[in-house]
Amino acid sequence: MPLNRLSTFATALLAVPLALPAAELPPKPTVADVVKASRASEWRVPDPDNTLYMEIGTGRVVIELAPEFAPRHAANIRAMVREGYFDGLAILRSQDNWVVQWGDPDENNPKPLKTAKAKLPGEFTVPLKSIKDFTRLPDRDGYAPQVGHANGFPAARDPKSGQAWLAHCYGMVGVGRDTAADSGNGGALYAVIGNAPRHLDRNITVVGRVIDGMPLLSVLPRGAGAMGFYEKPEQMVPIKSVRLAADVPEEQRSKLEILRSDSASFKAVAEAQRNRGGPWTKVAAGHVDLCNVPIPVRQQANAN
Amino acid sequence: MPLNRLSTFATALLAVPLALPAAELPPKPTVADVVKASRASEWRVPDPDNTLYMEIGTGRVVIELAPEFAPRHAANIRAMVREGYFDGLAILRSQDNWVVQWGDPDENNPKPLKTAKAKLPGEFTVPLKSIKDFTRLPDRDGYAPQVGHANGFPAARDPKSGQAWLAHCYGMVGVGRDTAADSGNGGALYAVIGNAPRHLDRNITVVGRVIDGMPLLSVLPRGAGAMGFYEKPEQMVPIKSVRLAADVPEEQRSKLEILRSDSASFKAVAEAQRNRGGPWTKVAAGHVDLCNVPIPVRQQANAN
Repeated sequence: MPLNRLSTFATALLAVPLALPAAELPPKPTVADVVKASRASEWRVPDPDNTLYMEIGTGRVVIELAPEFAPRHAANIRAMVREGYFDGLAILRSQDNWVVQWGDPDENNPKPLKTAKAKLPGEFTVPLKSIKDFTRLPDRDGYAPQVGHANGFPAARDPKSGQAWLAHCYGMVGVGRDTAADSGNGGALYAVIGNAPRHLDRNITVVGRVIDGMPLLSVLPRGAGAMGFYEKPEQMVPIKSVRLAADVPEEQRSKLEILRSDSASFKAVAEAQRNRGGPWTKVAAGHVDLCNVPIPVRQQANAN
Repeated sequence: MPLNRLSTFATALLAVPLALPAAELPPKPTVADVVKASRASEWRVPDPDNTLYMEIGTGRVVIELAPEFAPRHAANIRAMVREGYFDGLAILRSQDNWVVQWGDPDENNPKPLKTAKAKLPGEFTVPLKSIKDFTRLPDRDGYAPQVGHANGFPAARDPKSGQAWLAHCYGMVGVGRDTAADSGNGGALYAVIGNAPRHLDRNITVVGRVIDGMPLLSVLPRGAGAMGFYEKPEQMVPIKSVRLAADVPEEQRSKLEILRSDSASFKAVAEAQRNRGGPWTKVAAGHVDLCNVPIPVRQQANAN
């Protein structure tokens, strides 16, 4: 019977693997799905001795220091914080698609240091072999031979030069300096608020990453002066205080945890970003840029 | 005489080309230097028929449409603008390191269209051969086989598929849509305010670029709702009007000009960013990412 034959024919067709139409990608776990399915052991609590709380009028900015990549600057910033150096200083600069920067507003009458150093040699790169936990991305990068994550920080390596360094991704914190490589000390810091300025890599000491509170910095009015500096003192954003988490009573600490960059779930996060599934996504990128890999941070699962 | 001999010796030393210490790069023109030295003929004034003025409380956002890449959406947006469709709508969403988005706040009672279309097929890519003026960058890219600029817009090409598309760099403007590829019409638009989300390329219709006023969008408070949507009507940012420059009296137009992306100076701008000179820069990147190439915009040289 014609109907039967048609039916058999249709069934036979269905047995052949169908090429999906161009507009249909099969669904797959999203970044949020991967994070939700992760195991508790894949998360780490940042070391309170390497965690800074910068308190401004709108709230708290939490910065994780990366002493592996900038041991001397991390130590000097810790010393400055414990001297109360940053308390009463200000955010001085907000340049669109670039950085927000803070430090001492009074160049002519700089705030004195006690035990902290006024200048440090630049820590623009460190020996590759000193970075123990580098998890390499398979994706190629224009700025470095190898990129990946080192204990939660986006980083790059060059086996030829034997050097490794932190990458200027969104939210990374660096040390402002003058022309001389040793003219910074960590008293002037900036956070990246725009497209990753990777051409700054290896030219500046990168000391850490904002792990909470980026929107408090990224929405600050852009400064009208050269390089986004605020022109009037009243435009500057006062810094109430900067404290080490270790020096803050337990109950006042931010209860954050970060997905370990050497975990299986972190690898799955990168893959979820690299090749998104449907139905919204129509074409998977097949690539993820170092600075487009999300580094999940959440409230500690066991926090009140 | 010893003094003489020493002097001769020193002169001889100076005659030998000195290897610069690792920390010293020779100076070279900066992006600003290149722009300053450019010729008037290397600049173009954006077509008033492809230029939008979005007026919000804090000022004017200027968007250049890219009809080569999205002819139907550019035409539909032009039609909506001329219907006054956007006037009285609002910025609805501000998500950190992602996008600011605007459109109709009232999903249940949508603003009616007159001649403009409610849905359009996606213009995610266009035939490569339809893009006449592609200036390719020599730099490799992770997301596309070839990248460069087409009439001032960052773009990508794939000779294998024969397609070209606009790239999601900072300030690019795209068409919000639902799951269906044809569910957008240009009435919901977004601008990129963070690290280039290049994985959106080829998944969305990109229609243009903010050429002036990005800081008016990028500093908007982030929305507390899912995906950065504002949760309360009073948080939304009213759009006073959107007009085509062509429909605005000459004396009220923004007098902007853009460095032609097929000019020698544009190529020099990319090179100035790719390999910065000293003395501040210590290591030249040797690479520039598509979205890190500045696209210079300035007040018209002959403007009042």
